[in-house]
Amino acid sequence: MYKITLIPGDGVGPEVIQALLYILEAVDLKLDYTMACAGNACFQDTGSTIPDETILKAKRSDATLFGAVTTVPGQKSAIITLRKELDLYANIRPVKSYLGTNCLYNDLDLVIVRENTEGLYSGIEEYTSDGATALRVITNDASEKICKFAFEYAEKNDRKKVTAIHKANVLKKTDGIFKDAFYRISNDFPKIHSEDKYVDAAAMFLITKPDNFDVIVTTNLFGDILSDEGAGLVGGLGMVPSANIGDNNALFEPVHGSAPDITGLRISNPSAMILSAVMMMDHLGETSEARKLENALLDVLNERKFLTPDLGGSSKTMEMAEEIRSKLI
Amino acid sequence: MYKITLIPGDGVGPEVIQALLYILEAVDLKLDYTMACAGNACFQDTGSTIPDETILKAKRSDATLFGAVTTVPGQKSAIITLRKELDLYANIRPVKSYLGTNCLYNDLDLVIVRENTEGLYSGIEEYTSDGATALRVITNDASEKICKFAFEYAEKNDRKKVTAIHKANVLKKTDGIFKDAFYRISNDFPKIHSEDKYVDAAAMFLITKPDNFDVIVTTNLFGDILSDEGAGLVGGLGMVPSANIGDNNALFEPVHGSAPDITGLRISNPSAMILSAVMMMDHLGETSEARKLENALLDVLNERKFLTPDLGGSSKTMEMAEEIRSKLI
Ligand SMILES: CC(C)[C@H](C(=O)O)[C@@H](O)C(=O)O
Ligand SMILES: CC(C)[C@H](C(=O)O)[C@@H](O)C(=O)O
Repeated sequence: MYKITLIPGDGVGPEVIQALLYILEAVDLKLDYTMACAGNACFQDTGSTIPDETILKAKRSDATLFGAVTTVPGQKSAIITLRKELDLYANIRPVKSYLGTNCLYNDLDLVIVRENTEGLYSGIEEYTSDGATALRVITNDASEKICKFAFEYAEKNDRKKVTAIHKANVLKKTDGIFKDAFYRISNDFPKIHSEDKYVDAAAMFLITKPDNFDVIVTTNLFGDILSDEGAGLVGGLGMVPSANIGDNNALFEPVHGSAPDITGLRISNPSAMILSAVMMMDHLGETSEARKLENALLDVLNERKFLTPDLGGSSKTMEMAEEIRSKLI
Repeated sequence: MYKITLIPGDGVGPEVIQALLYILEAVDLKLDYTMACAGNACFQDTGSTIPDETILKAKRSDATLFGAVTTVPGQKSAIITLRKELDLYANIRPVKSYLGTNCLYNDLDLVIVRENTEGLYSGIEEYTSDGATALRVITNDASEKICKFAFEYAEKNDRKKVTAIHKANVLKKTDGIFKDAFYRISNDFPKIHSEDKYVDAAAMFLITKPDNFDVIVTTNLFGDILSDEGAGLVGGLGMVPSANIGDNNALFEPVHGSAPDITGLRISNPSAMILSAVMMMDHLGETSEARKLENALLDVLNERKFLTPDLGGSSKTMEMAEEIRSKLI
């Protein structure tokens, strides 16, 4: 029995969570759900976008499933707060092409490991007399921790190479620290090839030579940008899941946001949420159930009969979910 | 007669400058060249990667053509110094597909206007007890200046839309300043559509919906990343030129670097350098010669007979240059 905190959130968040729960009923896992609120609707109800109770529930559960939230300017970001409060220092974002989706490449399979606690997400910003400044914070410890995580991830998942992405030609000190930490840690993993690239070059090579990458490890904001770019390569944000991992907690969420433009139309693509649950099951060690769920989704994508509009189909979220569930029964 | 400072630099820099000069002999423009040094070879000779004399020459000429430099870690960046010393606050980077190149899209034609003086290029970095910090500096003045530049550019070039790219959901103060400046300036250009997008979303949409963009205006490092991503969409760095524009000076350079991996093989693609010269001619008001030069290059690309290896051919730099020149005579 696993204790799972569910945070549906706003916009399409509740929609994709609903679709997922419907599918999970057909999975052979005992999951004990607790609901928790976050985001803008939560703010209307409780006065906070991320109440202490939600944080506490997430801390106490084996894993958290997070839909998506809308963050109104001026509000505190629920997801950034959760990442920090639960010290979810590693954000894993696979960029994998699934047949049947609108991919630029049909055989893409790389993973971006994004540092999730510092960099330009330090929250240290100040107004000045003529504008504002933001502090990019890079520490030795966090850099080593995320690089170690990336190499261990590579080792566990039979990957051959880890590439550090940085801009040390301009950010000589901060990214110098990151790059040095990377090569220091790489010494402990002699079987895995290590190299590094500038973030601008990486943004190009992701398009022109994506095979050059296997596991990417990078700082917070570069990871944010490159993972969305990666999503563009494999059929859009509707297809990319993510895992936020710490030493004691883990949270799984689609990379997409609350998508106000299609909210209420009930046509959101549940794939990213489902793949996030697949990552959760893998994390919990339930790999055979994870494969079953992933394969059910792959079958439906391959058949191209019940796809949401972003995938070129005309199905509603729940029609696609129904079809995926039917493969599991 | 225009006074042009030439800075060949290192690696493939001298190679593409040589190819360009050979072609420019066939163009009907009086150009008075002065050579100046910058980069690593210059450092070996003079003890500086960017001697005062080079800066002075660039300041005193009508335009500067810059090849590429190699910057050894620890050295001062020649190009960043030139951008700052000459106050070349606007970096224009067209992303345009040319037939005959390996483009993802055959009809791409957008322009990235990158702020060129501040942001994470402030140079304000410090070691701390546990790592290092870098200061992202965003000022009202520089933000307004670059946004005004982008709208004026749009107006002059018959473009319909300007999109501001930022990350104001996380960098609330710094990118709040930038975004506010953008919409303030947009009021003066009622005929041009204005909108804004998050940088992560933009990195995806550049791939999935590039038609959504026309002119992009963004801060320094986001512009660096997105323009290389754009290069990936139109056949790689060998195809993308750039202009660095200030109120009193202008410098034109390929987006690619010194490319140590192919240096000396004499196979570097001269297109980005040639297109940079096209931008220079447009800037000098010599639009009919600019079109002639551009068309000569386009012809050679279309014919696909004399292309460098990155474009799928097997010609040397000077063979491709010879062919382009022959179209001009
Ligand atoms: C919503 C936003 C704060 C978040 C981020 O920047 O990390 C999102 O873009 C993501 O990638 O999870
Ligand atoms: C070489 C480097 C300092 C430079 C930059 O970051 O601006 C380059 O990447 C560019 O885009 O012109």
